[in-house]
Amino acid sequence: MTLDATMLEMGRRARTGAEALRTATAATRSAALSAMAAALRDRAQPILDANAADVDRARSRGVTEALIDRLALTPARIAAMAGAVEEVAAFPDPLGQATANWTRPNGLAFSRVRTPLGVLAIIYESRPNVTADAAALCIRSGNAAILRSGSDCLDSALAIHAAVTEGLTAAGLPGEAVQLVDTPDRAAVGALLTGLGGTIDLLIPRGGRSLVERVQAEARVPVLGHLEGMNHTYLHASADPDMAVAVVLNAKMRRVSVCGATETLLVDREAAGRLLPPVAEALMAAGCELRGDAGARALIPGMGEAEEADWSTEYLAPILSVKVVEGLDEAVEHINRYGSGHTEAIVAEDSFAAAAFQSVVDASIVLWNASTQFADGGEFGFGGEIGISTSRLHARGPVGAEQLTSYKYVVTGTGQTRP
Amino acid sequence: MTLDATMLEMGRRARTGAEALRTATAATRSAALSAMAAALRDRAQPILDANAADVDRARSRGVTEALIDRLALTPARIAAMAGAVEEVAAFPDPLGQATANWTRPNGLAFSRVRTPLGVLAIIYESRPNVTADAAALCIRSGNAAILRSGSDCLDSALAIHAAVTEGLTAAGLPGEAVQLVDTPDRAAVGALLTGLGGTIDLLIPRGGRSLVERVQAEARVPVLGHLEGMNHTYLHASADPDMAVAVVLNAKMRRVSVCGATETLLVDREAAGRLLPPVAEALMAAGCELRGDAGARALIPGMGEAEEADWSTEYLAPILSVKVVEGLDEAVEHINRYGSGHTEAIVAEDSFAAAAFQSVVDASIVLWNASTQFADGGEFGFGGEIGISTSRLHARGPVGAEQLTSYKYVVTGTGQTRP
Repeated sequence: MTLDATMLEMGRRARTGAEALRTATAATRSAALSAMAAALRDRAQPILDANAADVDRARSRGVTEALIDRLALTPARIAAMAGAVEEVAAFPDPLGQATANWTRPNGLAFSRVRTPLGVLAIIYESRPNVTADAAALCIRSGNAAILRSGSDCLDSALAIHAAVTEGLTAAGLPGEAVQLVDTPDRAAVGALLTGLGGTIDLLIPRGGRSLVERVQAEARVPVLGHLEGMNHTYLHASADPDMAVAVVLNAKMRRVSVCGATETLLVDREAAGRLLPPVAEALMAAGCELRGDAGARALIPGMGEAEEADWSTEYLAPILSVKVVEGLDEAVEHINRYGSGHTEAIVAEDSFAAAAFQSVVDASIVLWNASTQFADGGEFGFGGEIGISTSRLHARGPVGAEQLTSYKYVVTGTGQTRP
Repeated sequence: MTLDATMLEMGRRARTGAEALRTATAATRSAALSAMAAALRDRAQPILDANAADVDRARSRGVTEALIDRLALTPARIAAMAGAVEEVAAFPDPLGQATANWTRPNGLAFSRVRTPLGVLAIIYESRPNVTADAAALCIRSGNAAILRSGSDCLDSALAIHAAVTEGLTAAGLPGEAVQLVDTPDRAAVGALLTGLGGTIDLLIPRGGRSLVERVQAEARVPVLGHLEGMNHTYLHASADPDMAVAVVLNAKMRRVSVCGATETLLVDREAAGRLLPPVAEALMAAGCELRGDAGARALIPGMGEAEEADWSTEYLAPILSVKVVEGLDEAVEHINRYGSGHTEAIVAEDSFAAAAFQSVVDASIVLWNASTQFADGGEFGFGGEIGISTSRLHARGPVGAEQLTSYKYVVTGTGQTRP
């Protein structure tokens, strides 16, 4: 069978799987998730063996140690993967939830009820845990999935997928509900982008910018993806200096490689002399390079110079650009110009300034007096996430099981006809 | 300026208009709508004159009287158009509404707040009132719009658009918030489908199947559209015979050309002898042609024969296909196979059968003991609609002002940092 024919067949099987998941009870889908978690623990050794093969191949190609670290599994990481699946199993089932109820003057009773989306194709890169996380969120939300793992970790993904299949089967659900593309051939991605003959309802790219941009440019079906997190933390003149230090240090340095990391610090001129030096000192002590505009450099000796490109660079590294602004209006203007609509924060004691900031900044997450690193579905209480959407359509911000649903209107009458 | 350059300029202006609408208060947008309604009444005569020119041109091209009727405005129709805009003005403003609030164990307070989508491009055919309706819903939901009217009613659209601009300006909003493509050149549609340099967030085609299919096939930006309403009414064995007659007659014949009209009637075999004859009699008396399967024809003398194509034909005409089924399972199977996911109804006294039907049928609207012709945003209480989505992404079912919004998460802390 050619690759295209194989892929089309996967699409057809996914439709069957979607129908089984859609009509299964919440208890059945929970049982599948629990059995999948148990299978991940039972299969820890074969998963580690498969992962060792992936790691060896990657090493022989001379990839960076950072990539090896993302790729490598340990018994603890497998236990964490199983634990995450158990958390999704315990998460309230979204399907059938009524999110609105109302009655019209003619007596018709309306209810808006959550339903699955259908078949999701999820294309990701080299983190093996995504295979388990994505499968779990799809099962919880009643969506069939076609998973396309990065070729770097395909052996790991296949071993993890065996546990997914075991979980589905144990609960009486068909394995075709969650399928994994079993070839590293990049043409398989191209096939997914066509929608496999109308069988795919939504594509979710999860990975670097080049992957997301390729998917958004070429896909013939809807895409839910995030581009970058070009995030700002803004220190209003009213900010508490100690809080400013703690929040900025965490927002930048807790993990520099996550999409919720702050990349630019904005400081009100009126308070910059008081606020910026302790913040800069803490950052530099933690190993962060600072690149400032003239206003910032005048206050911090030895700070490097920010160029125009710095204001739109998602470093994902221990580097922070710093700009002194005249006040809230200039801060918002800078954010709306350079931000990517991901996560923005203000530190302020003045609640009117904070409310204005939260109202006027157009981003998926707008925080007041908290670190931008809270941009994460788990921290939102969503029981895991498949990514953070910077789109304004369908789902915006962290995408958990609830955000992977649609709805239908259930209308109950007593014989009403329309005049 | 070439057409492409003109269109790109429209896109840039729409972005400015979107920012003005996004940051305007609800009161300002309500004032714009009220002023727009007043301007429609004031400009009734120039609108009628422009419409007369459209009608003359259409007549000289020999279009059908049905099309002339859709195209032609009267003083009463203009008053109705202004009244519809006033209803949208009075509708609760969706922007800023919190649709969820929760607090996490670490004290972070989350709020999910409605925001606009951005810039919508709405492509429609020959109903002049769509210009006013679409403009009103976009202003209410804070979205800028680029309207592309059918060339048949471009003069009418231009005259109505002048009232839209007057309303916006009266409220201090820029006219570029709602623009109208002022050329009948079909290349303008092609330009809109490219997204105008990333300035369009969502395309909404509103018209016949060929328009929607072209937009879905060629668009490089997300599309919200409905294809067809291949809707069923299912008479369960427990149906009340009088209710069955009233509901089916209304569902098919109230208006045969709307997307909520029933196109296929399903009847349980066990009760068909009792239920079908009075329903068929009422339909035939109202001028409806019936095309049945063998089971139906055995009960109704003179009924025509349904062919395979009838089960998937959206007649939009006084024709109804009729099939006798063995029970709920076969009815659902038929609907899931041939239905378009638009609107489905069951007539039943048995509430367990009704609940099973409403749970398992995968359509945007699933009614129990009510006419499928209630598929309409106004009947849902949405204060107007821009169409009915058969997609499961973003909005499903009637699309009113609320469905034209996105959301953002507003998070309030006391200096929280992420461990």
